[in-house]
Amino acid sequence: MGPTHPKAVLDLQNPLPPPGRLIKAPENFLDRAGLLRASGQSPGERRSFMRGAFAAAAAAAGAGAGSAAAQGDPSILTLPAHSTGLGQPVVTDGYGRPSKWETGVQRRQSPGLTQTAQASVSFAPLQSLFGIVTPSGLHFERHHQGWWDIDPSQHRLMINGSDPRLVKKPLVFTVDELMRLPSVSRFYFIECGANTGMEWGNVAVPTCQYTHGMLSCCEFTGVPLKTLLDMAGANTRLGRYVLAEGADGSGMTRTVPMELIENGEVLVAYGQNGEMLRPENGYPLRLVVPGVQGVSWVKYLRRVEVGDQPYGTKDEALHYVDLMPGGLQRQYTSVQECKSVVTTPSGGQVLQDRGFYSVNGLAWSGRGKVAKVDVSVDGGRNWRRARLQGPVLDKCLTRFSLDWVWDGQPALVQSRATDSTGYVQPTMRQLRAVRGTRSIYHNNAVQTWHVQANGEVANVQLA
Amino acid sequence: MGPTHPKAVLDLQNPLPPPGRLIKAPENFLDRAGLLRASGQSPGERRSFMRGAFAAAAAAAGAGAGSAAAQGDPSILTLPAHSTGLGQPVVTDGYGRPSKWETGVQRRQSPGLTQTAQASVSFAPLQSLFGIVTPSGLHFERHHQGWWDIDPSQHRLMINGSDPRLVKKPLVFTVDELMRLPSVSRFYFIECGANTGMEWGNVAVPTCQYTHGMLSCCEFTGVPLKTLLDMAGANTRLGRYVLAEGADGSGMTRTVPMELIENGEVLVAYGQNGEMLRPENGYPLRLVVPGVQGVSWVKYLRRVEVGDQPYGTKDEALHYVDLMPGGLQRQYTSVQECKSVVTTPSGGQVLQDRGFYSVNGLAWSGRGKVAKVDVSVDGGRNWRRARLQGPVLDKCLTRFSLDWVWDGQPALVQSRATDSTGYVQPTMRQLRAVRGTRSIYHNNAVQTWHVQANGEVANVQLA
Repeated sequence: MGPTHPKAVLDLQNPLPPPGRLIKAPENFLDRAGLLRASGQSPGERRSFMRGAFAAAAAAAGAGAGSAAAQGDPSILTLPAHSTGLGQPVVTDGYGRPSKWETGVQRRQSPGLTQTAQASVSFAPLQSLFGIVTPSGLHFERHHQGWWDIDPSQHRLMINGSDPRLVKKPLVFTVDELMRLPSVSRFYFIECGANTGMEWGNVAVPTCQYTHGMLSCCEFTGVPLKTLLDMAGANTRLGRYVLAEGADGSGMTRTVPMELIENGEVLVAYGQNGEMLRPENGYPLRLVVPGVQGVSWVKYLRRVEVGDQPYGTKDEALHYVDLMPGGLQRQYTSVQECKSVVTTPSGGQVLQDRGFYSVNGLAWSGRGKVAKVDVSVDGGRNWRRARLQGPVLDKCLTRFSLDWVWDGQPALVQSRATDSTGYVQPTMRQLRAVRGTRSIYHNNAVQTWHVQANGEVANVQLA
Repeated sequence: MGPTHPKAVLDLQNPLPPPGRLIKAPENFLDRAGLLRASGQSPGERRSFMRGAFAAAAAAAGAGAGSAAAQGDPSILTLPAHSTGLGQPVVTDGYGRPSKWETGVQRRQSPGLTQTAQASVSFAPLQSLFGIVTPSGLHFERHHQGWWDIDPSQHRLMINGSDPRLVKKPLVFTVDELMRLPSVSRFYFIECGANTGMEWGNVAVPTCQYTHGMLSCCEFTGVPLKTLLDMAGANTRLGRYVLAEGADGSGMTRTVPMELIENGEVLVAYGQNGEMLRPENGYPLRLVVPGVQGVSWVKYLRRVEVGDQPYGTKDEALHYVDLMPGGLQRQYTSVQECKSVVTTPSGGQVLQDRGFYSVNGLAWSGRGKVAKVDVSVDGGRNWRRARLQGPVLDKCLTRFSLDWVWDGQPALVQSRATDSTGYVQPTMRQLRAVRGTRSIYHNNAVQTWHVQANGEVANVQLA
C-alpha cells in the first residue's frame, strides 16, 4: 500500500515496529501494484484463479504461472546470481545469524517506559514469530540492574535453610556439578507479570510487540530443584517456602511456595532452546517456575534458602503487587492466568486487500493446558472455535489459527482462551469491574484489534 | 584432569571440538584439583556428603556450604562485580547472542572431507546440546554450491505439471502470498542421508559432532504442499510424484512420492524455530519432508512439478544411492530408519571421576515415534531401559537418559532405539552383513563409545 497508509507510531525516537508479514514494505512485495505487475492481470481477471475454500486466498495469491513471462517481464527471464554463481562456504559462521532481510525483526525497548536502560524491558516481536518457540535472540528482557555475562567457572549455587532444622546439609554447587545431575527438558512460557500492563489505564500502545511482548516460550533444561533439596536433606514438612536469590546487583529475591517445587516442575535451569541460557536471560543459572510470572524465575541464581514462611521481600511486598479499588492491594498473585492474543492481524499491520487471511495467535495458562480458543471478528458478538496447533503442552504457549475472509468492512478481532481448569479469559470490562484501573500487573483481558476499512489495524479498547 | 589427558584430535588445522560438559577446560572448573580447592576438603571428607541414590553425584558435587569460607578462601568473601555494579542495558542487541563463555560451542567443518567449502558440510555440536531443539545458529549445514541470502521479495515458487493433465492451473507464488495461507508448525528432525557415513569403512571419527552431527531438529512453520497442489488443481491420481527444485546453482532436484504429500506432512516452510529460515537452511523457502533424508528437503525451493513417474535426477540416480555388496546399488532409500546415539559421555569427552553420571542422548525414526531406548555399558551384553523425555513426537528427536554410576573400569556405552513400528536399531555387524562396507549413506547402526580407565572416551567399533 506504501506511503498512503501511515503506520501506527509509538514515538519518534524509536524505529517503527516491524510491520509483520501482512505489510512487508519492499516494493513489489505483496502490495497492490506489485501484485498486479507480477500477475500481469487486472483484479477481475485474477479472480479467475479462485477455487473452493481457497477462493479468496487464491485471489490474493493470484499470479498464474507463465503470465509474467507472457507479459514480457524480463526480470523472470534472467537467472538471478544465486542460480548461476558460487555461494558462500560452510561455516562462514560457527554460530549462524538471521538473514540480512530480517534485520527488522528485533526485540525493542519502549523509550520513556523506564528511567534507565538498566532497569528496563525489551519486548519480543510477537507479530513476526511463528509456532511456539521464541528464538533465544528475540526472547524478551527484563532487568532490574542490567545484565551480566557471568564466568560460569566462578559461579556457585548455595542451598541452605533459614534455620538448621530446615536443611541438614547445606550444599554449594558449581555449574558443572549441577550439569552432571539428572536433568529434564520441558517447553514452558514465561510472561512478565506486568505484560499488557499499560492497558489497565486505557493507554493503548500500538502493536502487539508492546502490548503482549513480555512473553516468550523456550525449551528449558535443568535439574529439578526438588533434587537439590533432597540432596541437602531439606525438611519440606516444616519448610513450606523457599527464597530464591539472584547474584546481580539488583538483589532480586522471591518467595516460591514448596508446593510448586514438590511436583518436580521448578527447575534450576542452565539450558534454553538446546544451548546454554543467554546472558540476558540469566546465564549460567536461572530458576524456572512454570506458570508463574517471570520475576520469580530468578536470573543469575546463586542461592535457594528453605524457610517456614513467606519472606515478604521488597520484590513481593512493594513491587509486583496488584493495586485494587479502595486502596487495597493483592500480594503473591503470581500465577499467570489464562490469556491469549491475536498476533496476525494485529496493531500496526495493514491488510493489503479484501479476501482470505489466517487469523493467528497465541494462548497460554499458568494453571495448565489451553483447552480451547474462540475468535470473534465483531467485537465479541459472535465467536468461532479456532484450530489449536499440537502439541498442546502444560504451561506452554499454544498457537491457534482460524480461516477468515475479510469483506473490507471494519472488524473488531478478538481471541478468548479457556484453560483445562475451565477458566475463561475475561473481558477488560469484567476485569476492571473487580480490579479497577490502577493496576500494573496481571492483565489477562481479551485484546481487541480494530481492522479499519483502509486495512490498517489499531489497538482499541471497547467501552 | 588437565594436560595429563590428551584429547582426541581430528586434525591439526581444525580447532578442537568443544570438550562437552564433562571436561570443561578452564582451571578450577570441576577438575579434581579445583573441586578440592572449592570444597576445602580431602576426597575422603567429601564422601561424607553422599546420600541415597545421589551418593556418587553428591561426591562429585561435594562442596559443603560455608566450608570454603571456613577454610578462609577469600574469593567467596569478596562480592563479584556483577553483585555490586551496574550491568548492561536492555537491547544491547536487538537480536541477542550467546554468552562469550560459550564460543567453543560451534558447528564445525571436517577439513579434507570435501574438495571445496561450497560443496561441503558443517556438523552440529550434539555433545553440547540439550533437549530436542537445535538452535538455528548451530543447525548443521550441507551445501552443494554454497549458501545464499536470497531477496524474498524477488523469490517465487512455481507449481506446475510435467503434462497439462497433471496440473490444471499452474501457479506462481510470492513469499508473502504463501505466508498469507493457513500454516502449520511442527517439530521434526532433519538428518543428512550421509550422517555417520564414515563409520561404514571403519573410519572412527573422534566425536559425536563428527559421527552424528549432520542431524538437527527444529519447529518448522509453513504451508502443507498439499494445499498448494489443491489450489493448482493437481491430479493426484495420475500424478504420483513431484519434482522439487532449488534455486541455487547446484540445480538440486529430488523426486518426492505423492503418498508422503497427501497426508499433509510435507511443508513448503518459511519458518524455523519461530523465526524465518536461516540463509544456510534455505531462506526464504525450503521443502520439509518429515522422516526423509535432508537432501530431499530442497532449499531455496523455486519449483514443484507434478509428474507421473520418478524423475531419476542426478541427485537420486548417481548420488545418495547405497552401494551394496556385489556391485549392486539401492535407490530411493530415502526414509531415515530408527537410530540413536549417546551424546554424554561421547568421544572426546573425559569423565572427571568415578561416580554418578547421567547417560544422555538422542533417538529418532523416520517411520514414526521412538517407542523405547535401551542403554548398555558393557558393549551390548546387558541392557537397561532409558527414560524418554516428553513430548515424544512423530519424526522428531527424542531425548533419553539413564542414571549410571561409573566404577572406574573400562566401559562400552551404547544405545539402541526401537520405533513405533517395532523396528529395532541394528548393530554395525548386522548392518554390514547385508549392506557391506562400501556405502556412504543410511548408516543407522548402534554407536559404541569406549570409556577408558583414565576417563577418556573414544569412538570404537566392535568386531
